[in-house]
Amino acid sequence: MLGLDPDPRELWVRDEQPFTAGTPVERAAQAVCDHCRAVIEATAPACVAVKLQLARFELLGTAGWQALVTVAAEARAHGLLVIADGKRGDIDVTAQAYASALTGGADTPFGALPGLGADLVTVNPLMGRDAITPFLAAARAGGGGVLLLVRTSNPGAADVQDLMLEEGVSVWERLAVLVDELGSDGVGESGLSDVGAVIGATAPSHLARARELMARAPFLLPGVGAQGGRVEELRAAFEPGRAGGLVSASRSIVNAYAGAGGDPPGAARAEAERLRAAAWSLSERVVPVR
Amino acid sequence: MLGLDPDPRELWVRDEQPFTAGTPVERAAQAVCDHCRAVIEATAPACVAVKLQLARFELLGTAGWQALVTVAAEARAHGLLVIADGKRGDIDVTAQAYASALTGGADTPFGALPGLGADLVTVNPLMGRDAITPFLAAARAGGGGVLLLVRTSNPGAADVQDLMLEEGVSVWERLAVLVDELGSDGVGESGLSDVGAVIGATAPSHLARARELMARAPFLLPGVGAQGGRVEELRAAFEPGRAGGLVSASRSIVNAYAGAGGDPPGAARAEAERLRAAAWSLSERVVPVR
Repeated sequence: MLGLDPDPRELWVRDEQPFTAGTPVERAAQAVCDHCRAVIEATAPACVAVKLQLARFELLGTAGWQALVTVAAEARAHGLLVIADGKRGDIDVTAQAYASALTGGADTPFGALPGLGADLVTVNPLMGRDAITPFLAAARAGGGGVLLLVRTSNPGAADVQDLMLEEGVSVWERLAVLVDELGSDGVGESGLSDVGAVIGATAPSHLARARELMARAPFLLPGVGAQGGRVEELRAAFEPGRAGGLVSASRSIVNAYAGAGGDPPGAARAEAERLRAAAWSLSERVVPVR
Repeated sequence: MLGLDPDPRELWVRDEQPFTAGTPVERAAQAVCDHCRAVIEATAPACVAVKLQLARFELLGTAGWQALVTVAAEARAHGLLVIADGKRGDIDVTAQAYASALTGGADTPFGALPGLGADLVTVNPLMGRDAITPFLAAARAGGGGVLLLVRTSNPGAADVQDLMLEEGVSVWERLAVLVDELGSDGVGESGLSDVGAVIGATAPSHLARARELMARAPFLLPGVGAQGGRVEELRAAFEPGRAGGLVSASRSIVNAYAGAGGDPPGAARAEAERLRAAAWSLSERVVPVR
């Protein structure tokens, strides 16, 4: 899966076009859109989804939302699912506003406000069930789902998520139980539920336990590549089958040319294909345990 | 403190202007800006800060960021601090992008991208220290600070934040310790640090303990009014003085006219003044314990 996390300082197009017209925001947004389009075109055949890092678009200010819409449309045109990675989470009415923005929009006295139409949205569960369910309801209405942060890929994940609870499990294990509970009535024909979990690929030792606690949840696995995670260590994610794990790589795909040589699109495609083959190879060797 | 959480279905201006021109997004954004301007004008003399709920602006899509910039500028023109309430939180490079967007902007090969220039930003600490420090660094560079979620105002807060840890304290108490640690080198002449805490006014029983754990942290206290919190029960927040507590009310100020009668601006001003008087009265009766 392709993660699009377009840093304005690291775009493919930076040296190829002069970008002399417009404000810095307009020029940066145009470059980000051109970059994302090129990366999608190069890698789409080897991907099933695009994860859009909302922070990079928020930094584009007044041009950010339009860029996000443009890139999401480009992804859809290539047959890819769109994951809005914003890690939002807030009280009920606020969660509803975020959910409307990122998925199906909202009806207002001024007319219908369109949403981004994302298939999946990442959600931060620290505020509990009532901060999550508006996202789940909105995503389900459009046939999509949510991905809750459970055990993230960054070093600081240990600060809070790894704390041990009185009941004998860690905070992240308790979050995993919440994922399983919320998804229990959203299990589709594939056997996977519409409530998934974000589990950093940088801590593969947690994966078997995570799968034990969340047998039916799709796992979004960020952190492969630039953050140090290796796809070969993610076998437990694929126990429910190929669709059980979404291996997300951003910088390692986009910047593959820096290490592997070659032109950026070719190197990106090769790296995306390598990751896909590694993931599928894992899923084929797995004997489902339940 | 005024919370601006503009629901397009509950704007002061909805019945006063025809909004016939433009797309639904443009009309909604114009109405939100007009509404927010009117609320700020009515209540600014009784407030020190405006908390902008980013979700409501995100729902405005392509017109959202400009509306946010417009409303923030209006607040500043009235001498108010601007709090960007987005509850963001992500890995290091992503947190940096969000922080740049919400505070001082970023230099890029395309020129300087302006930030929102918020004085304070709310941050979700579930991902740990390295997801927080980029926000703190960016806010400090502009003379501002961060407000970490510690014990939120919604019922679901109990699901995760109230879980008891093996070490004998709850998750939220552990987050409070993190607030105190991160703020230890950011204590200003006022005696308050630049790392504050979001503590829901709906659970005042937690406040004394929160103040015990975070002696120098400013507390943002949402949940007064529509969510059921009462300012009279928040005394412990004000132990460090008047500035120790930021009592945030959104719907109860903006919709005061529905209960109290009168014109919306007059009723909002009266409610904002009532809340300020109640908060200051509390702070004057407090004898600081340290």
